[in-house]
Amino acid sequence: MRMYDIIEKKRNGHVLTKKEIEYFINGYTNGEIPDYQVSALLMAIYFQDMTNDERAALTMAMVNSGDKIDLAPIKGIKADKHSTGGVGDTTTLILAPLVASLDVPVAKMSGRGLGHTGGTLDKLESVPGFHVEITNKAFIDLVNKNKIAIVGQSGNLTPADKKIYSLRDVTATVNSIPLIASSIMSKKIASGSDAIVLDVKTGAGAFMKDLDDAKNLADAMVSIGNHVGRKTMAVISDMSQPLGNAIGNALEIEEAIRTLSGKGPKDLTELCLTLGSQMVVLANKADNIESARKRLEENLTNGKAFEKFKVFLKSQGGDARVADNPDLLNKAKYKIDLPAQQSGTVAKLIADDIGSAAMMLGAGRATKDSVIDLAVGIVLHKKIGDDVKEGESLLTIHANQEKIEHVKEKLYASIDISHTPVKAPPLIYDTITNM
Amino acid sequence: MRMYDIIEKKRNGHVLTKKEIEYFINGYTNGEIPDYQVSALLMAIYFQDMTNDERAALTMAMVNSGDKIDLAPIKGIKADKHSTGGVGDTTTLILAPLVASLDVPVAKMSGRGLGHTGGTLDKLESVPGFHVEITNKAFIDLVNKNKIAIVGQSGNLTPADKKIYSLRDVTATVNSIPLIASSIMSKKIASGSDAIVLDVKTGAGAFMKDLDDAKNLADAMVSIGNHVGRKTMAVISDMSQPLGNAIGNALEIEEAIRTLSGKGPKDLTELCLTLGSQMVVLANKADNIESARKRLEENLTNGKAFEKFKVFLKSQGGDARVADNPDLLNKAKYKIDLPAQQSGTVAKLIADDIGSAAMMLGAGRATKDSVIDLAVGIVLHKKIGDDVKEGESLLTIHANQEKIEHVKEKLYASIDISHTPVKAPPLIYDTITNM
Repeated sequence: MRMYDIIEKKRNGHVLTKKEIEYFINGYTNGEIPDYQVSALLMAIYFQDMTNDERAALTMAMVNSGDKIDLAPIKGIKADKHSTGGVGDTTTLILAPLVASLDVPVAKMSGRGLGHTGGTLDKLESVPGFHVEITNKAFIDLVNKNKIAIVGQSGNLTPADKKIYSLRDVTATVNSIPLIASSIMSKKIASGSDAIVLDVKTGAGAFMKDLDDAKNLADAMVSIGNHVGRKTMAVISDMSQPLGNAIGNALEIEEAIRTLSGKGPKDLTELCLTLGSQMVVLANKADNIESARKRLEENLTNGKAFEKFKVFLKSQGGDARVADNPDLLNKAKYKIDLPAQQSGTVAKLIADDIGSAAMMLGAGRATKDSVIDLAVGIVLHKKIGDDVKEGESLLTIHANQEKIEHVKEKLYASIDISHTPVKAPPLIYDTITNM
Repeated sequence: MRMYDIIEKKRNGHVLTKKEIEYFINGYTNGEIPDYQVSALLMAIYFQDMTNDERAALTMAMVNSGDKIDLAPIKGIKADKHSTGGVGDTTTLILAPLVASLDVPVAKMSGRGLGHTGGTLDKLESVPGFHVEITNKAFIDLVNKNKIAIVGQSGNLTPADKKIYSLRDVTATVNSIPLIASSIMSKKIASGSDAIVLDVKTGAGAFMKDLDDAKNLADAMVSIGNHVGRKTMAVISDMSQPLGNAIGNALEIEEAIRTLSGKGPKDLTELCLTLGSQMVVLANKADNIESARKRLEENLTNGKAFEKFKVFLKSQGGDARVADNPDLLNKAKYKIDLPAQQSGTVAKLIADDIGSAAMMLGAGRATKDSVIDLAVGIVLHKKIGDDVKEGESLLTIHANQEKIEHVKEKLYASIDISHTPVKAPPLIYDTITNM
């Protein structure tokens, strides 16, 4: 077998065999196949696409290129959720205890990554004492006991994906559905969950700006998951504006606590119920989406989800009193309102730019070595479709610096107020089950 | 400017600017842009093509990446011919003295390369004493005096093309019209000729198997040449069977001598007259193709082309007596006929395979370090459309080894004899002038 022939075959629009895909992935991982041949193949895939069989083979070859997490010692069907990333996306913090409160085992592995705010790990660490440095055994014991635990990413998962992603990043081959789908799915599959629910974001603040692209990506990932024996569903949700109201680490914890008590923002609550219902069904804890949703709604109001969150915090060293008294969380020195400059209806609230403003305050990492300020961020008071009067506060900036003119400027530039009525965008565009 | 943006722009089907193309070529030549980005761009070009402006800019950027030969001290319009390569292609040996006999200055630079037989240099060196190790000044003086001289390739011509070609060779991006056309034209333009006549081969023995591809390549090269101010024409000629009858270095010299005396094979003579007429017209030595051709025909029969060849050989140390007495050339020990195994009409004479048989005898280089046997080769007695009787000789093998069963087998496998009539393929498919 020769890499040249594999490139030529794909270039000519033919279907690669499982063996050819494994040859390429193994050869690249161990350094026998050079970058320049792989980048040529990636560009050929960009133009010629891959079939469902090829995508599944590529995913599994990347899974098999490194360590795999074995969750077999955990009883039951382990369900996981993955989001393609957005601004103010607090869903994981809510979903995990919410579905665990219905006895769905949630064995979460999380990284820190780059972005507008910290990752799930960073957010949780704004709870005093909470830590993820636990042994594998402790992790598994906790999930068996409480149905919920979180651990930092360890082991050498999907090294092939890491190498290929770095190459795609510098060769303009990131935007390819088969490559994005196999990259995400390989990481999820190597992490060991039996069932996967995908939250594919679309809109200005999402990686997939276009709804059709988002649908294609969701279809591709659901197909790969089910193809390789992992029960997979997907939701396509809006990211034209931030989700919920809070953007920032401690601020999102506070929002999560409110939502787990049934008092959260409508959109965030709705998305958590939609994703959560799928997780519960995939984990065989309900017969259908409707009954799953009903039981989740109950647990938001009867205190069970809220209690599960406290057990979770406590089990990993966190001060569970924050759940009852969020003032124990880190607080920023300054709270600065951003008044509307005119009356009208909020027409735009560009998620990406509001996220960048939060990062300017110190809420997120620009580089791997950035230090995050857990207290700072933004709390929105108005969302798209809301009416606002001149001088009324659009949002509150939580800052640890007094001079934030540049942040205000950025925020004003990302908000449009219209004199004609504007409808709020739909929250859920589609759900994909393929089962 | 960033290479990433250039890759993405081309991937999206947009037109690169001259500056972007120069940035990529200069950066790659000096090692600042890595192979993996260039191979991604090459694959994007494979799919998205390039406009005539882009192709011209790419060609000139490669020309400007290294040394350029200055032929200005030679009076008149210097004409050059380039063939995309075939089997038994003796045209250069005939064309050069033929057009020089009409005062067209031919300043030929030639390399050794790989192939079924040696390059033009190797063939000429089968004339005792002939050599190409002459100074630049001697070369220019000879062309000014005799209108003809040949020199080995020197200097660092088109290093960008060399680097890109090596990369294309291992990334399945060779078969791309804009890349092939710019590669060939950059070398021709850097070699300094004012006018270029291209012989684009098509058929089983050619790089371009398909006539449409050959036409596209010819169009592309003529367009580039005229775009950058070099008068360029092209001929599309047949390479489904070998050209002429001789394949082998000394054997081709003998055939060239016969052709220059007006007694050569019909197809070889015709192609030389067609290409030569274009060279003469481009060099302003005739008003039109018809009168150029008439004057070339005259010089084949009146001895002037033959005399020019002798002057040429002598001027570079060669024993010009070979022209009158080809027996002075290297001779192979054994002449072995290949008898037809049945009666009928020759239907196939696969050029590539017959070339490979000649290489098995030692006529060509398989690797850069191979030593060529100048005496060996093959002389065809039958071409496609010719009738043959069982036992009649199809061809004569000139060998320096007695055991050549494997060569005979190869040759039998490359020749088909049919019981139904077969027409000879056309020699010239098209001529492209674009002027």
